[in-house]
Amino acid sequence: MIPGSELILNPDGSVYHLHLLPGQIANDIITVGDPERVAEISRRFDRVELRVAAREFVTHTGELDGRRLTVISTGIGTDNVDIVLNELDALVNIDLERREVKAELTVLNLLRLGTSGALQPDLPLGSILLSAGALSADGLMPYYGVDGVGDDFGTALSEFVTANGLRLPVDPLYFSPVLPDFLNHPAGKQLPRGVTLTAAGFYAPQGRSLRLPTRLHPELLDVLRRFDYRGLRITNIEMETAGIYGLANALGHRSASLSALLANRGAGTFSKNPAAAVDALIDLGLLLLTDRDGSTDAA
Amino acid sequence: MIPGSELILNPDGSVYHLHLLPGQIANDIITVGDPERVAEISRRFDRVELRVAAREFVTHTGELDGRRLTVISTGIGTDNVDIVLNELDALVNIDLERREVKAELTVLNLLRLGTSGALQPDLPLGSILLSAGALSADGLMPYYGVDGVGDDFGTALSEFVTANGLRLPVDPLYFSPVLPDFLNHPAGKQLPRGVTLTAAGFYAPQGRSLRLPTRLHPELLDVLRRFDYRGLRITNIEMETAGIYGLANALGHRSASLSALLANRGAGTFSKNPAAAVDALIDLGLLLLTDRDGSTDAA
Repeated sequence: MIPGSELILNPDGSVYHLHLLPGQIANDIITVGDPERVAEISRRFDRVELRVAAREFVTHTGELDGRRLTVISTGIGTDNVDIVLNELDALVNIDLERREVKAELTVLNLLRLGTSGALQPDLPLGSILLSAGALSADGLMPYYGVDGVGDDFGTALSEFVTANGLRLPVDPLYFSPVLPDFLNHPAGKQLPRGVTLTAAGFYAPQGRSLRLPTRLHPELLDVLRRFDYRGLRITNIEMETAGIYGLANALGHRSASLSALLANRGAGTFSKNPAAAVDALIDLGLLLLTDRDGSTDAA
Repeated sequence: MIPGSELILNPDGSVYHLHLLPGQIANDIITVGDPERVAEISRRFDRVELRVAAREFVTHTGELDGRRLTVISTGIGTDNVDIVLNELDALVNIDLERREVKAELTVLNLLRLGTSGALQPDLPLGSILLSAGALSADGLMPYYGVDGVGDDFGTALSEFVTANGLRLPVDPLYFSPVLPDFLNHPAGKQLPRGVTLTAAGFYAPQGRSLRLPTRLHPELLDVLRRFDYRGLRITNIEMETAGIYGLANALGHRSASLSALLANRGAGTFSKNPAAAVDALIDLGLLLLTDRDGSTDAA
């Protein structure tokens, strides 16, 4: 039995932070960072059966084209992802009344629809990238008794950085996800892929300096940019993907992170129309989730 | 000149995430985690001059007893604290139009009013604790080119853990804050003090295990509980204080973190009335901020 100090439930029986009850989430789940983006997505559903909000966690469950879907905001950062993934998993894989792990486990499909800054100058603004892997440069996953998957990428990167006479502020962990089947849709297969660096903040952890120096200085960013391992390069920086990939892998869920590239850190350019880029990202995400046999041949 | 890719401004000239303009914040700033707690505090103000909300960052500025005060929500975690502290600092210490650091710097007083779980069984539920220092077990501060203050505590802790045949998942950094003057109020002087462990998440990073193992296992938590260095012990675990202390120190601001203890991880107990505990915490915070000559002799 999982004690009350570990699995905290609210008086109504809902999970502690998300305030959700079992049955209130679909098996296909879209995650976004911004709480306001949840309604932007659910207004495209045919109907919405549930709206719950607590702190930065807003959840809408509904239906589109006969598919039950949940969209939930994680807020910013992998510390929030820790809360969201553990509590979503508890909703389907723990009997909350008996406080016991269920005999039959449910596999969730998690699709992150987010925005990101591109590290590589050749990636066009507004394009959509699929994270083939995530490099955790934050602090979450070292607390789990699980290892990275595809650690060779992380090891090779550390060696490359060292060979250039530099050092990363923290040792990166690499996570390669088990992608949901709906990524086999033609629109998913044609997406450019790269490795996403997940940072522990927006300023120094992403190489930005206002009044304080950053240890991810331009020379180090440039080394990350030049790294190539078996055709995979570090393409973009954001703040959630490695937490999602690391925990989804460990919990046996499938996960995919799509990023609309709103800025290019290499070229120093910014999207002229971020709203249109996010709109296109949402369209693509909903197409992948609802049109699984690929009958709509997306251009 | 700080380039646009580092200091991103919105079309109205406001700072990127907080959506605030210079002049819209007071020098005395209360931070809370939960966006909904901002209004709980500002409804006690005599008047509110500003309400701004963007993502999990909600800001109200107003006045109480002749003092101008700002209350802002950080959301959960030090990755959010990175955004909030850098952008608050930019509002007072960077000329946003010229994109240059000002010649005259402003010192902000930051007061976190939060909730926390006590690590030590002798700390009563509902009591309020002042963090005399913070142990960063998250991933933010290694990205800044600044060192911990009072590193001896961190070094001594690492040695103590090693001597017990154990290992921390990440190397802790220790930060001791420059406290705001208003902590000299009698109600501030009598507060119990301890060292706060700031975690990178809610589950494994705080020693909780649902379906996945945690590397902060009971034996390691017990070693943390037994550690004592020159009368200071690790008293509680939460998710923001080390980011606030580390960045406030580096940026030259004063900061203090007060925590209402809602759970006791050592005794396995939970507050029967968390709302009352948070109410008492807000009362104390506002007393400290407004009654600076200590004329009200708080019991």
